[in-house]
Amino acid sequence: MAKRGMLIVLSGPSGVGKGTVRKALFDAGDTDFQYSISMTTRKPRDGEKDGIDYFFVSKEQFEDNIQNGKMLEYAKYVDNYYGTPIDYVNATLDSGKDVFLEIEVNGAMQVRANCPDAVFVFLTPPDLVELKHRLVGRGTDDMEVINKRIKKAVGEIGMMRNYDYAVVNDEVQNAVDRIRSIINSERLRVTRVMPDYEQMLGED
Amino acid sequence: MAKRGMLIVLSGPSGVGKGTVRKALFDAGDTDFQYSISMTTRKPRDGEKDGIDYFFVSKEQFEDNIQNGKMLEYAKYVDNYYGTPIDYVNATLDSGKDVFLEIEVNGAMQVRANCPDAVFVFLTPPDLVELKHRLVGRGTDDMEVINKRIKKAVGEIGMMRNYDYAVVNDEVQNAVDRIRSIINSERLRVTRVMPDYEQMLGED
Repeated sequence: MAKRGMLIVLSGPSGVGKGTVRKALFDAGDTDFQYSISMTTRKPRDGEKDGIDYFFVSKEQFEDNIQNGKMLEYAKYVDNYYGTPIDYVNATLDSGKDVFLEIEVNGAMQVRANCPDAVFVFLTPPDLVELKHRLVGRGTDDMEVINKRIKKAVGEIGMMRNYDYAVVNDEVQNAVDRIRSIINSERLRVTRVMPDYEQMLGED
Repeated sequence: MAKRGMLIVLSGPSGVGKGTVRKALFDAGDTDFQYSISMTTRKPRDGEKDGIDYFFVSKEQFEDNIQNGKMLEYAKYVDNYYGTPIDYVNATLDSGKDVFLEIEVNGAMQVRANCPDAVFVFLTPPDLVELKHRLVGRGTDDMEVINKRIKKAVGEIGMMRNYDYAVVNDEVQNAVDRIRSIINSERLRVTRVMPDYEQMLGED
C-alpha cells in the first residue's frame, strides 16, 4: 500500500489572493500534488467541464451528500452550494498523492475538525503587518476608518491562530515560494516519514 | 525589542555526516543564522582561535559552568568536555538571530528538555530506508551481520522519534536544501510570527 498523501489547506480572508496564489503554484508545473476539485450546484459556465473545473451536481444530490457525511467541508453562497467531496480527497490521499485545497476560512475550520493532521496555511494581506503604521502614518483616514480596519485586522489575526503557517502575500511569487518551502518541509516531518521507516524494518 | 530568534538543532547517529552538512550549509554563504560556538576543555590545535573555533576553557571552569546551569548541553569524550554555553545561545537568540547547533544525539536530548520550541532535525544515513532490502538483496553478509545492522538501524529510528524532521543525507547538497526548506518553513509558523502581529496591533 502506498504511503498516504498529505492534505494541504490554503485559506485566508476574502480578497487576499488565494486563487491567484494557488493558480501560480499549479501553473509553475513542478508540483506533484493534486488540486482538489470542488463540487457545486451552480450551472456550468461556458467552457467549464464536469470533473475538471467542478463536479456539477443538483441541489438534491449535494444535500444528500451533506446528510450522508460525504462533504469534507461546504458552504452556501447566494443560492448555490460549494464544497469538497470527501471521497475524492480520500481516494487521492490513499493513492499516495498529496492534495491541495484552496478554500474559505469557514471551510478550513471544518477540515481542521475532520483532518487534524492536514497542513493549514493562512494567507495574509501584505498590509496586515504594516497596517497600523500605515494608517496612522498617512494621516488621511479619520479615526473611525482606522479603527474599523484595525478591528478587521485583529479579527483576521484571531483566525490565523487556527493555522499552522502564516504566509504574507506581498508578491505572488514570494507567497508561492513560501508555500513550496512549507510543503517540502512538511514532507520531512518525523510523524509523516516514520511509518515508512517502520514498515521498511518490519516493525509493523 | 527584537523578536527572539529560533534555535535549530542538527543531530543524528555518529558517522552520518552532520559536520559535512553543517559546513556545506554555512559555506553556501546565504544563511543569516549564527553557528553556535562550542566550549571545550581540550587544548587548541594549530590555527584554532578562542571564540571562533571553540571557547577554550579549563576543566575547572567547565565544571563550574555545569554546576551553575550554564551549559545548554554537554558531554565528556575521553578526558575532555565539549558543550554549548547557554549564555552565548541566549544572547544570540535575544538579539533576534537564529542559532544553529550541530551536536550529538545525547546533547540534542538535553536541548530538547531545556528548549522545547527549538527545531530538531535528525540526519539519517541514506542506507537506513533501503537497509533491509540491500542487506538481504546483496546476499554477502551472514544473518548475524544483517541482524546486527538492522538492530542498529531500529535503534536509530527510535532516536528519530524525538525529532521534528528527518533528513536523509543521500547527497550533501540535497540534505542542505532540505534543511534550508525546514528553516524557511519554520520561520512561517503561526506560533513564531504571532507575537509580531500582536505587537504590531497593540494587543500586548
